[in-house]
Amino acid sequence: MTAARTTRPQLKIRRINLDTGRENVVVISSRSKALRADVYRGFSRVELRRDAKVLLATLLLTDDGLVGVDEIGLAEPAFRRFGEPAGTPITITPAARPASLDAVRAKIQGRSFTAAEIDAIIDDITHYRYSDMEIAAFLVGSASFMSSDELLALAHAMAQAGTQLTWDRPIVVDKHCIGGIPGNRTSMIVVPIVAAHGLTIPKTSSRAITSPAGTADTMEVLARVDLSVEEMKEVVAACHGCLVWGGHVNLSPADDILISVERPLSLDTREQMVASIMSKKIAAGSTHLLIDLPVGPSAKLTTAAEAMRLRKLFEFVGDHFGIAVEVITTDGRQPIGNGIGPVLEAQDVMAVLGNAADAPRDLREKSLRLAAHLLEYDPELRGGKGYARARELLDSGAALKQMEKIIDAQGPSGCRTDLGSFTADIKATHDGIVDSIDCLCLNRLARSAGAPIDKGAGIRLFKKIGDRVAQGEPLYRIYAFEESQYELAVAAANANNGYLVGPPSGGKAAP
Amino acid sequence: MTAARTTRPQLKIRRINLDTGRENVVVISSRSKALRADVYRGFSRVELRRDAKVLLATLLLTDDGLVGVDEIGLAEPAFRRFGEPAGTPITITPAARPASLDAVRAKIQGRSFTAAEIDAIIDDITHYRYSDMEIAAFLVGSASFMSSDELLALAHAMAQAGTQLTWDRPIVVDKHCIGGIPGNRTSMIVVPIVAAHGLTIPKTSSRAITSPAGTADTMEVLARVDLSVEEMKEVVAACHGCLVWGGHVNLSPADDILISVERPLSLDTREQMVASIMSKKIAAGSTHLLIDLPVGPSAKLTTAAEAMRLRKLFEFVGDHFGIAVEVITTDGRQPIGNGIGPVLEAQDVMAVLGNAADAPRDLREKSLRLAAHLLEYDPELRGGKGYARARELLDSGAALKQMEKIIDAQGPSGCRTDLGSFTADIKATHDGIVDSIDCLCLNRLARSAGAPIDKGAGIRLFKKIGDRVAQGEPLYRIYAFEESQYELAVAAANANNGYLVGPPSGGKAAP
Repeated sequence: MTAARTTRPQLKIRRINLDTGRENVVVISSRSKALRADVYRGFSRVELRRDAKVLLATLLLTDDGLVGVDEIGLAEPAFRRFGEPAGTPITITPAARPASLDAVRAKIQGRSFTAAEIDAIIDDITHYRYSDMEIAAFLVGSASFMSSDELLALAHAMAQAGTQLTWDRPIVVDKHCIGGIPGNRTSMIVVPIVAAHGLTIPKTSSRAITSPAGTADTMEVLARVDLSVEEMKEVVAACHGCLVWGGHVNLSPADDILISVERPLSLDTREQMVASIMSKKIAAGSTHLLIDLPVGPSAKLTTAAEAMRLRKLFEFVGDHFGIAVEVITTDGRQPIGNGIGPVLEAQDVMAVLGNAADAPRDLREKSLRLAAHLLEYDPELRGGKGYARARELLDSGAALKQMEKIIDAQGPSGCRTDLGSFTADIKATHDGIVDSIDCLCLNRLARSAGAPIDKGAGIRLFKKIGDRVAQGEPLYRIYAFEESQYELAVAAANANNGYLVGPPSGGKAAP
Repeated sequence: MTAARTTRPQLKIRRINLDTGRENVVVISSRSKALRADVYRGFSRVELRRDAKVLLATLLLTDDGLVGVDEIGLAEPAFRRFGEPAGTPITITPAARPASLDAVRAKIQGRSFTAAEIDAIIDDITHYRYSDMEIAAFLVGSASFMSSDELLALAHAMAQAGTQLTWDRPIVVDKHCIGGIPGNRTSMIVVPIVAAHGLTIPKTSSRAITSPAGTADTMEVLARVDLSVEEMKEVVAACHGCLVWGGHVNLSPADDILISVERPLSLDTREQMVASIMSKKIAAGSTHLLIDLPVGPSAKLTTAAEAMRLRKLFEFVGDHFGIAVEVITTDGRQPIGNGIGPVLEAQDVMAVLGNAADAPRDLREKSLRLAAHLLEYDPELRGGKGYARARELLDSGAALKQMEKIIDAQGPSGCRTDLGSFTADIKATHDGIVDSIDCLCLNRLARSAGAPIDKGAGIRLFKKIGDRVAQGEPLYRIYAFEESQYELAVAAANANNGYLVGPPSGGKAAP
């Protein structure tokens, strides 16, 4: 078969300026001599080969001058990943399906994966050998049932697939929130408190996926977050902690690929969430991990029972990989802090660290509580001394000083830090007491207004659950930079402002 | 929100010569004024709109001259489906997910579909509103469990989505084989026999998907098969039967879309197979349907128990829609007839119809048996008179005459009918008796040789199960038109010829 293969005419690489996201896409002429185009159709899978170098890609066909008959066009991601200059001769053949897809097919039919199968699947996904459709088949096929062994194998395979950090210290602490609550930028307060105490907390965070801000987006208002592994290690050596973007450090890259398919499909499977989070923590070299599970009617978890089930999964995986996992449930009924969107959240964080009079109390209290748990991993603070120490570090200004040190060490990001110039106050339609605030609705509004792309877009809240409001009094203010986004966000807020205002006395305000 | 939407700048359509298969793909400049490219990434979904006309598409970005900043490039399928000329101004917005995807998500989490949800899903899929990834999620999510009600709703929704044929006759018969057996071109013998008797049999067939030939590909060697609905009706009025390609008549178009995703994923779910086949038969207006289920070690069904389960599903759906379904199991241990590939199979068919001395007996016998079942739907032939009547119509030349009439009525296809000029005989490596023949292996070999794209490529068998062979005696001959395909097929056949030749005496030859 090798002999037959070498008789195929070769094609010269042409770079095609086309961003095709994660997918490798190539274009050939329908009159190409190397592939009989009539055998192929758009979105067939093909294999590009030069010596030992192989790339799987999705094929598009053209019959005008986009590529010549002796050329193969590589769209940007494929060109970058194949890593050969334009003009390089390569061969192209119909792609054999990745062998690991047989396991996916068996899983869909009800079988379980072996650990070796999961390793092979994650290896293929990490090397871009799966099409989007094939990734979707893996995720959906695994969504209905995943055994404990499968969960462990998945977390392990994902952790192994990228950078694995090691720290020359016995205790490396970390925290993680499963997200869904607007604002809630506790990491940026917890890290400086814990680092000021001297515990090592090399925090990597994600950027927003469906929310108006991730910790990495908000930290970027204050400092650079796209540090290399070496730079990150230097910051941690100097400051005991850091606040960087995990994507740049290449922790669990398969996770980012899986999330990019889960997101458009709105897939949300507990086991996959746990494997995703734990793979990053294993790869990050954490020894002690605090998981924050907010529970509330519009949070990701709506009942304590759900939270309990998820807690057991986290603890199970943590035990297996030798990570001391502590899981706490927190109040997820409403946003934490007043700001929603990177600049507004960064203002909240600095207000809390600076002990400003108008700093949001809920963000301060939650951060102190989380920091207290982490500090008690220090044997000297065991048994309840964490909270007092956290408050001492915050109130004394030691945490603020530590944050400034971290910001200096990470360097300036050059981001704009101004707030959007288009503003609108959304007002209460009647007197009463705020009964509930819809987290999903506020997240959507802040995104409509432009967050996180526009760092200074978003929402500033004036009222929280239990607050008394008068008709016409502002509930919150929308900030945007662009008129069309401003109009969209205001129209959406006027249709549904996300607040439920109940009768002034009594009512059903939650405890 | 309408006001905000109209403030978006419009883009002018540019046609992009790029075949993207089923997916709608559009390209905009990363400096486009209509969409903030930094908000989008490759493979985001967008909505194109002109007045009431809407199209969902997958977005690619470019930053060179492929499209101008005030243009939107529509790849061929999107251009054709949107149906507006180049230069037409349109608006583009982020696409809202089709609402029916919520039901898919719920199904993945374990809920069942309602009939209304399935209607909405099939409507969205038929109108190209689902991406490949979303179709995969629907198929895989449904693969693990599908209730009887879901199966009925799916068959109904798919049948409703395209052309629905009606025939002004009380009895409209049809036959269908689930495929997998090389050769096996019984429809092309059954239809002329049944039509010669005077029963109505408007047969629509598919083209090959993963096999070396479908009935439509083989019939095309003899006549045109891409008839319009009107042309098809004329042929049936004149000849009582026809043999046309179902794809051109637009029967159950959602089925073709689903199959195009099932195929690369190698998905193979019983319920989806039954819904797919029955949707086409409901849409075709069949009143009586014979289903052929070949059973054999390398067939789609390997045990009688599997066949029984499938039979019950077919009967259940048939009962519900008022179609008299009869399901028979047939010998699926080896190819039926000697030819594999369109021209070779057409030669087998014409040899049987012409009562040639060397006509394959197995193809003749199986066709007579199937025709007998269909003929007994005529009240005058009830109770066992079908077989004698079928043989009479075949032996007398009436069936051949009817086939010639159908060929004339459908008109010439203009296809090449010669056999490939590259030939190689694959020979027995030792003396013995043929124990088994691997259907999957022979299908793959015939495809490697170029079938069905090259009509005259394929395989002619010289030996069947139970035949005695001597070392060096040819088992079959490979035909190909192109040297590289010839070499690939011969190399593959030498690695595994698909035949198991057992000891000359005794052995385990099947009865």
